[in-house]
Amino acid sequence: MALRDERVTLAHGGGGKAMRDLIEEVFTSVFQPDAMEDQARLVSEALCEPGARLAMTTDGFVVDPVEFPGGDIGKIAVCGTVNDLAVGGAKPLWLSAAFIIEEGTEIALLRRIVASMQAEAEKAGVRIVTGDTKVVGRGSADKVFITTSGVGVIPPGRDMAATKVRPGDVAIVNGVLGDHGAAIMAARGDMALSAEIPSDCAGLGHLMQAVLAAAPDARACRDATRGGLASALNEIAEAAGVGIEIEETALPLRPEVKGVCEILGLDPLYLANEGTLVVFVPEDQAEAALAAMKTVPEGAGATVIGKATDGPKGRVTMRTLFGGGRIVDMLVGEQLPRIC
Amino acid sequence: MALRDERVTLAHGGGGKAMRDLIEEVFTSVFQPDAMEDQARLVSEALCEPGARLAMTTDGFVVDPVEFPGGDIGKIAVCGTVNDLAVGGAKPLWLSAAFIIEEGTEIALLRRIVASMQAEAEKAGVRIVTGDTKVVGRGSADKVFITTSGVGVIPPGRDMAATKVRPGDVAIVNGVLGDHGAAIMAARGDMALSAEIPSDCAGLGHLMQAVLAAAPDARACRDATRGGLASALNEIAEAAGVGIEIEETALPLRPEVKGVCEILGLDPLYLANEGTLVVFVPEDQAEAALAAMKTVPEGAGATVIGKATDGPKGRVTMRTLFGGGRIVDMLVGEQLPRIC
Repeated sequence: MALRDERVTLAHGGGGKAMRDLIEEVFTSVFQPDAMEDQARLVSEALCEPGARLAMTTDGFVVDPVEFPGGDIGKIAVCGTVNDLAVGGAKPLWLSAAFIIEEGTEIALLRRIVASMQAEAEKAGVRIVTGDTKVVGRGSADKVFITTSGVGVIPPGRDMAATKVRPGDVAIVNGVLGDHGAAIMAARGDMALSAEIPSDCAGLGHLMQAVLAAAPDARACRDATRGGLASALNEIAEAAGVGIEIEETALPLRPEVKGVCEILGLDPLYLANEGTLVVFVPEDQAEAALAAMKTVPEGAGATVIGKATDGPKGRVTMRTLFGGGRIVDMLVGEQLPRIC
Repeated sequence: MALRDERVTLAHGGGGKAMRDLIEEVFTSVFQPDAMEDQARLVSEALCEPGARLAMTTDGFVVDPVEFPGGDIGKIAVCGTVNDLAVGGAKPLWLSAAFIIEEGTEIALLRRIVASMQAEAEKAGVRIVTGDTKVVGRGSADKVFITTSGVGVIPPGRDMAATKVRPGDVAIVNGVLGDHGAAIMAARGDMALSAEIPSDCAGLGHLMQAVLAAAPDARACRDATRGGLASALNEIAEAAGVGIEIEETALPLRPEVKGVCEILGLDPLYLANEGTLVVFVPEDQAEAALAAMKTVPEGAGATVIGKATDGPKGRVTMRTLFGGGRIVDMLVGEQLPRIC
């Protein structure tokens, strides 16, 4: 049956015919689940290797606006969950997607979001295997929220954790900082910025596989999303009980992002990223990790930004341009709501 | 660090210190995940038995009001996902929980919801292993939305599916119909109803284990949530290509629910349930299945309501009180938005 409506109505969430039509035409026709049962049924031999572990993660996405240069809420919902699996050393396998949709949302918008999710899932080599849709009245949500959950497999013997970082370990990022935060800020149109800054939103599963092949003893990895690189580094410093020292001159920044930060008095260390991670590797594997990153598109701008030290435990410091040092604390408050 | 705020602010979603405090004090102190990594890391031997399959499901919850007689959004979020796994014959293992919270929501309310989730998870024998919190501005969501995803294991040889129902199979429900729908309607206070109707919200994992032990060839099962029993039966009739005939006199209804339906002109067959399922079993296992259901509290009111027939394919009919027959179609439109 063809979906005749142009916008989502409450009936599309009611559990009846309208809902079935919406789900079949907009969602399952694209995601192509194996069967229309209440749960996906899945098999992976990798999960059953002795010593393998299952990784599970979830993330809700409320980004505003839902479409922005370099991506949309669908792309971010797939990449974010793929990345949360990947940074733990897991190979992402399956995703679920639950949509909370505001009455009145354009069905054409949903179709674009779903297409973008499927494209990103294919790129990452994962399948979206199950889902849900709810509809709430106008004004009870803002267009569409998506929660994705992910399941992956951590191969035998791999056990990355923030607690494992040791003094001397080298910190590497895969690319520029702050693009996502700056992109969303510019896309909100609150500022009359002429430069269009695209989000860095990207799946990092292939990048992580490359890093781990080259640097099998990689200690810990975090994607630098909300709270930016500063918060990710603080989390690691605290968990590992080490100091972390980074070099201001080593931080990769796009000139447009630097400009936005200077104009608005923002610190790019706290700006959100959706395709940037920081990985800590033993010093003797740093060169190999860096070279491996550069072999994949998402790691083209990879660079060493600093190292773990036996300095004050839990403290992140930055050597500035002028040779001084400053403490880089966790984000206090928030820079920009609904960044992801 | 003690959380001093009484209400959620945008900073609680910003990725920094305030978010960490909220997560530690309200969520992880109760759910007790193994480690603070970006993903849960899990092992289950049952998943690796030859022929076993992993079941994965997700559901978003937007119920309004968030607290109602018989439950709250937390209880429903755990039970709903446990049930989506259980009705496929899976043993539920792990849940994730993602919260989208409106700025200004009382932290005391979040604590009650989280306590209720943990209590229900313990009852169901599952663990909430990972989660996420997002905060949106006042007016961009309605208090709190929760998306839970679940992973379970389907043991070797079990393959329930709506397509497997055959003429002659017996349809059994575990208890009364429509309580959840009537409870939410009454709790909204739109009607001056004096009777307090509690929701039937309950986890059905143990019930399903009992049924499957007694009736190992059970064909298919659905929980009768949005769209009610009518929509669940229609889905099965269509998938299996059978007719389904139910008896009006056999439908278990609480007098208060019957009363609400008569006053408002609602059909209890379409009212939502959150602790009621319908299972189809071969005729020679029906008695055993029924007896097994009655051994667990959630099945105390179990009863046979009808059977699959070789009547018109995909059609659900009801023999009425007066001996006539009527077609029971899928729900058209919606009876009550934000029921779950």
